[in-house]
Amino acid sequence: MSQDTGLRNRGRERSDADDRRKAAEDLTGTKLEEISKYSFDPKAAEKNIENMIGAVQVPLGFAGPVRINGEHAKGEFLVPLATTEGALVASVSRGMSAITSSGGARVMIFGDAMTRAPVFRVNGIDHAAEVIEWISKNRKKMDGEVKGTTSHGKLISAETFPNGRSLFVRFAYDTGDAMGMNMATIATEAVCRLIEKETGASLVSVSGNMCTDKKPAWINAIEGRGKTVLAEVTVPSDIIEKKLHASVASVIETNIRKNLIGSSMAGSLGHNAHAANMAAALYIATGQDPAQVVEASMTMTVCESAGNGLYISVRMPAVEVGTVGGGTRLPCQSEALSMIGCLGPGRSKKLAEIVAVTVLAGELSTLAAQASGQLGKAHSELGR
Amino acid sequence: MSQDTGLRNRGRERSDADDRRKAAEDLTGTKLEEISKYSFDPKAAEKNIENMIGAVQVPLGFAGPVRINGEHAKGEFLVPLATTEGALVASVSRGMSAITSSGGARVMIFGDAMTRAPVFRVNGIDHAAEVIEWISKNRKKMDGEVKGTTSHGKLISAETFPNGRSLFVRFAYDTGDAMGMNMATIATEAVCRLIEKETGASLVSVSGNMCTDKKPAWINAIEGRGKTVLAEVTVPSDIIEKKLHASVASVIETNIRKNLIGSSMAGSLGHNAHAANMAAALYIATGQDPAQVVEASMTMTVCESAGNGLYISVRMPAVEVGTVGGGTRLPCQSEALSMIGCLGPGRSKKLAEIVAVTVLAGELSTLAAQASGQLGKAHSELGR
Amino acid sequence: MSQDTGLRNRGRERSDADDRRKAAEDLTGTKLEEISKYSFDPKAAEKNIENMIGAVQVPLGFAGPVRINGEHAKGEFLVPLATTEGALVASVSRGMSAITSSGGARVMIFGDAMTRAPVFRVNGIDHAAEVIEWISKNRKKMDGEVKGTTSHGKLISAETFPNGRSLFVRFAYDTGDAMGMNMATIATEAVCRLIEKETGASLVSVSGNMCTDKKPAWINAIEGRGKTVLAEVTVPSDIIEKKLHASVASVIETNIRKNLIGSSMAGSLGHNAHAANMAAALYIATGQDPAQVVEASMTMTVCESAGNGLYISVRMPAVEVGTVGGGTRLPCQSEALSMIGCLGPGRSKKLAEIVAVTVLAGELSTLAAQASGQLGKAHSELGR
Amino acid sequence: MSQDTGLRNRGRERSDADDRRKAAEDLTGTKLEEISKYSFDPKAAEKNIENMIGAVQVPLGFAGPVRINGEHAKGEFLVPLATTEGALVASVSRGMSAITSSGGARVMIFGDAMTRAPVFRVNGIDHAAEVIEWISKNRKKMDGEVKGTTSHGKLISAETFPNGRSLFVRFAYDTGDAMGMNMATIATEAVCRLIEKETGASLVSVSGNMCTDKKPAWINAIEGRGKTVLAEVTVPSDIIEKKLHASVASVIETNIRKNLIGSSMAGSLGHNAHAANMAAALYIATGQDPAQVVEASMTMTVCESAGNGLYISVRMPAVEVGTVGGGTRLPCQSEALSMIGCLGPGRSKKLAEIVAVTVLAGELSTLAAQASGQLGKAHSELGR
Repeated sequence: MSQDTGLRNRGRERSDADDRRKAAEDLTGTKLEEISKYSFDPKAAEKNIENMIGAVQVPLGFAGPVRINGEHAKGEFLVPLATTEGALVASVSRGMSAITSSGGARVMIFGDAMTRAPVFRVNGIDHAAEVIEWISKNRKKMDGEVKGTTSHGKLISAETFPNGRSLFVRFAYDTGDAMGMNMATIATEAVCRLIEKETGASLVSVSGNMCTDKKPAWINAIEGRGKTVLAEVTVPSDIIEKKLHASVASVIETNIRKNLIGSSMAGSLGHNAHAANMAAALYIATGQDPAQVVEASMTMTVCESAGNGLYISVRMPAVEVGTVGGGTRLPCQSEALSMIGCLGPGRSKKLAEIVAVTVLAGELSTLAAQASGQLGKAHSELGR
Repeated sequence: MSQDTGLRNRGRERSDADDRRKAAEDLTGTKLEEISKYSFDPKAAEKNIENMIGAVQVPLGFAGPVRINGEHAKGEFLVPLATTEGALVASVSRGMSAITSSGGARVMIFGDAMTRAPVFRVNGIDHAAEVIEWISKNRKKMDGEVKGTTSHGKLISAETFPNGRSLFVRFAYDTGDAMGMNMATIATEAVCRLIEKETGASLVSVSGNMCTDKKPAWINAIEGRGKTVLAEVTVPSDIIEKKLHASVASVIETNIRKNLIGSSMAGSLGHNAHAANMAAALYIATGQDPAQVVEASMTMTVCESAGNGLYISVRMPAVEVGTVGGGTRLPCQSEALSMIGCLGPGRSKKLAEIVAVTVLAGELSTLAAQASGQLGKAHSELGR
Repeated sequence: MSQDTGLRNRGRERSDADDRRKAAEDLTGTKLEEISKYSFDPKAAEKNIENMIGAVQVPLGFAGPVRINGEHAKGEFLVPLATTEGALVASVSRGMSAITSSGGARVMIFGDAMTRAPVFRVNGIDHAAEVIEWISKNRKKMDGEVKGTTSHGKLISAETFPNGRSLFVRFAYDTGDAMGMNMATIATEAVCRLIEKETGASLVSVSGNMCTDKKPAWINAIEGRGKTVLAEVTVPSDIIEKKLHASVASVIETNIRKNLIGSSMAGSLGHNAHAANMAAALYIATGQDPAQVVEASMTMTVCESAGNGLYISVRMPAVEVGTVGGGTRLPCQSEALSMIGCLGPGRSKKLAEIVAVTVLAGELSTLAAQASGQLGKAHSELGR
Repeated sequence: MSQDTGLRNRGRERSDADDRRKAAEDLTGTKLEEISKYSFDPKAAEKNIENMIGAVQVPLGFAGPVRINGEHAKGEFLVPLATTEGALVASVSRGMSAITSSGGARVMIFGDAMTRAPVFRVNGIDHAAEVIEWISKNRKKMDGEVKGTTSHGKLISAETFPNGRSLFVRFAYDTGDAMGMNMATIATEAVCRLIEKETGASLVSVSGNMCTDKKPAWINAIEGRGKTVLAEVTVPSDIIEKKLHASVASVIETNIRKNLIGSSMAGSLGHNAHAANMAAALYIATGQDPAQVVEASMTMTVCESAGNGLYISVRMPAVEVGTVGGGTRLPCQSEALSMIGCLGPGRSKKLAEIVAVTVLAGELSTLAAQASGQLGKAHSELGR
């Protein structure tokens, strides 16, 4: 049947996508007109998706400009945000306006490593100890295996966690400007084969979940994954009052009762207002992996009184972003990256800094809105 | 200056979007051609975004068909997935094929409530006790406030958590077919004003983070938020072997060492392989809130030996989805929802069931791939 | 051999204990003189220990007097603390002195239920749903089973958590003045047998760890176990300065950076300075289960500025104590309970209130000591 | 008044303790006869307690003998347990009997470091970066400060965690055979003074809770604190059946559903049956800090099928024990340490190994009891 043929078509041309889409229309009885109105060549997405039938258009706005005083991101930026949540872009823009009026946000990267943690089956704890010793003494051999799989990645460390007949090894890599998961996975597989051969340990899974990828986990919050980024700004009290319609004291109280106490009582790994919102909008706009919003949600926001106003900071232990490969190759996403000068090699740290400042802006704005009782109102007017 | 004018343009017409986009092009020195090639009227997105300059096109494919034996989703479904992660759609499809060959997945919803948890400042624990007593005795008055703000939402319960001078109240609502966050926020604000007036408690924030929205939190994993959904399938061993190239025993071992032991050692709230991937792709395709992938990542996957093969299940305590409002109104997203018969009122539970089965398929496929050492290979061929 | 005979002696007389102790001395080549100097009849401990050879003497001091304004504990109390950690009693006493000078601590119990959560094997999620429905509809039958095992315990609720082929049911009981674990276990076993018979579910373990007993778990922090107790006091600034040698501001800052931020960054379930110390010393003194110090360690301490000084509170979600049964029957422990008027029926809530205030005192004192840089000094002088 | 005089007596002689006790009797109207029947000189406890009025006698039994094949503990041991929980000693003994019949337990230490983590106030993230750099470059100066405070302790590492205006530094020490908290605290205070002087950072608290002491925290579960110890044994199936009245399959199933799945659903840091029980009983018997049972409760127990029976292991990431100082100096506690050859220098690792094997025995026995439905029965007969 032609419907079945369409569903099984694995071609990469636009005509193949059309063929599949028609089969999908037949099968589901749904017209997929809007989905068909994409502007890129399906072959451009051949490493990004299978069974392509079109594209989803996610509305894109900008927030800013925001002044960033980073190590890598310096100057004023218009930040592209792709979202369907009304009020989000306006809120982030409001926070960015307050930041810029305060002289800009300071941001720094305190750690940078992509991890992959296979799990091996061993015979018991003696065997685990032997494998651990082998790993500690054979760094050069492991480096050699890594080099055989990648010219950009470099092994930084290998942390071992034995547990009965399971042995977890958390490999950390410098992966250059790629987000690095695939690079880390492939390099780790090569190292694992070597470990299996030399030690008799048996690989169960190249990912043993101590990596931890796309799950909220304390190991990432504590040790970091991808880039660990901190951003801060001191906002004078008159700006808090005029631009954000709140008081310094009320923002600090809101942060303590909500983000510190409330999050802790909820058993939350994220001590923030809505970091995931900003991360999701920026990740989707720039072709990052949206599932890694999970790690971005583990942000901690802190507010303190500063001499002349409010000191607010965010700590993001796990910003996993790249400026080459993955979704960054696609046309719209490339343009969004270009808007912030982050397309191509040498720019992943700059992107991570922009992520953190965007989160900072959204936190500042929402905390002020909640502190002054405006949250429902904002959504009511802009988002319903 | 015209650039500045463009940035400040708040209009909702396409010409306004063009005006803003040009200003953004000027300011950033970047051509935003692809971003401008969207096919919907910006006014259609006026409740979804501000400062719109265009759209990002995310490649859309389908996985399936998959047979689902749910309470609400019944039959075979082609599931739309929007992603830029190569191999994801193919992997989910592979899992769906195994599920369908096994007679389909069973799926049920065990809980359904959207929560919002304000934090009040009280004078101390005596005052907290008084407010708690007021809340327990004035359900009707609170119901009245809720009704004044929504015709769809209904208050289910109000759980209280006192802590010194902070009092958290976790309100749970039935929000019909909307995802319900805005509805819950607005209703809660009304109830809070009543509580303030009647008890002298002072609202600090309508969200005190015990909700918990868009942060990974144990309170959601334990008590649920949105829909709590379980899906399961028993796959005969020959299907595991022929379709997934793994053995039942190896999948079970991988699940125990990785998803149960490894996740637990990592301090993870998610005991799964990559639930966030499937949730993100389906959420973006269908106009859901992608930041709520955070809650979806708290899935637990369990594998056991069944008489004739592999029993695999997923438990998703917090699937927050809607079929009306939010991003579901946009043209592409509407079409994607229509593909699975989930557009419009009366379908949010059906959508939640499809989410869970899609996650089940992705878990099955990836566990099998990891169990047989194919993970890096798949990404290497399809996704680099 | 006589040594072997001694080790195998199961008698309950002092001569049996002597016989065993001599065998232990022979086997280990160690004189156990001090251990033999216990003053109670071994038969008094026959329900507390097996293979008894003597007793360990733990030094006992008192802290206080402390003024307590509870619902159950009212007046001034000398609190017995058994510890070997130098400086602990002095520190708690210092905190109690500050509390008493401030008019005493307010304390209330906000929840009271002992839990036991068996895990059943079910056929799948349909079967789980059936069992859940049976449980929701057969409360009277379950109450009948409970009554068959205990005259003091009463079933309060049964919360269900399905997960694939596992079904967890968290039964909560009012257990009167016993701590209640054994009562809850035995009643739950009876209910489980009924559930097995009526539903076909198969009991795997009477404790499925969602209880959760003697492990630090978010379910207890969120939903409570045993007694949920809050205590508070407002200490005027001159008392903070004169008695505790710190300033209000420094104590608040210490609490925020250490107990709120630091604990959250560490992934801690306890947001306090050393609640476990006070709990351990009071539990050992009064014959409570010292392994339940684990649950007591999940305390959250909050400090705020009050009009005239420092407001400090503790929230203990899981104080599991009893005044009958268990170790409370032993002579020394009975005396320690009598010191605070907590021996015998009708007093477990009073004891829980005293626990919370003792923790409050220790928190206040240690936070002040850390805030003023005296911690190491105190241990250096009193405890090395 | 004489009562008041007694309460204020700070003397260390037996007559002082008598004086205080009489004052306590007067004040509380309670006879404290049994508490007065201690056999040691109060001066021996002068570094262990203040306001001493006597001692609490905790019943002491032994479990074992158990064969241990450790690196430090080798041979058969009778393990002293101080408890008031009926059935505990019998249960541990039963597990030890099964272990010994299986050839003994293997046990190894995989990490050993005591930590203390001060929190500093810094001016912001630039300042934090400067302090972090100073710490990374001035190891020798810090070593010098440490040496000035202790001849036994040695600084191993200093891990930094910046967060806005807070900077946490987790110092790890080798503390020889002391448990090491006081040593670590005093050394850290000296290092902190140096850091303050050289960097302008301001110490807020010598403990910023990322240590983490006496609170259940993921940082300890992941990175370890004190000794990280693993123990294992393979028990032939006939021993499981005859001695423990269970089957290998039922113990494995119980462990998976209860300790892995149930604990994970409860949000637990401990994936075990009752590790805290064994740790508490052994810690109290041997003069360890009973509040550190909290860390011991974070044990993970794993069961697998082995060729000829059941493989069971425990992983204890944080066993904090010492064989010199603290409560080990007291007469009864010294004798209990002597029973297992652990009194005095050079024996803390041996003690840690014995702790882990004792926990292993208790886990094995209780899992088997729960697997065969005997838990309530055991408590009913031995412990009510």
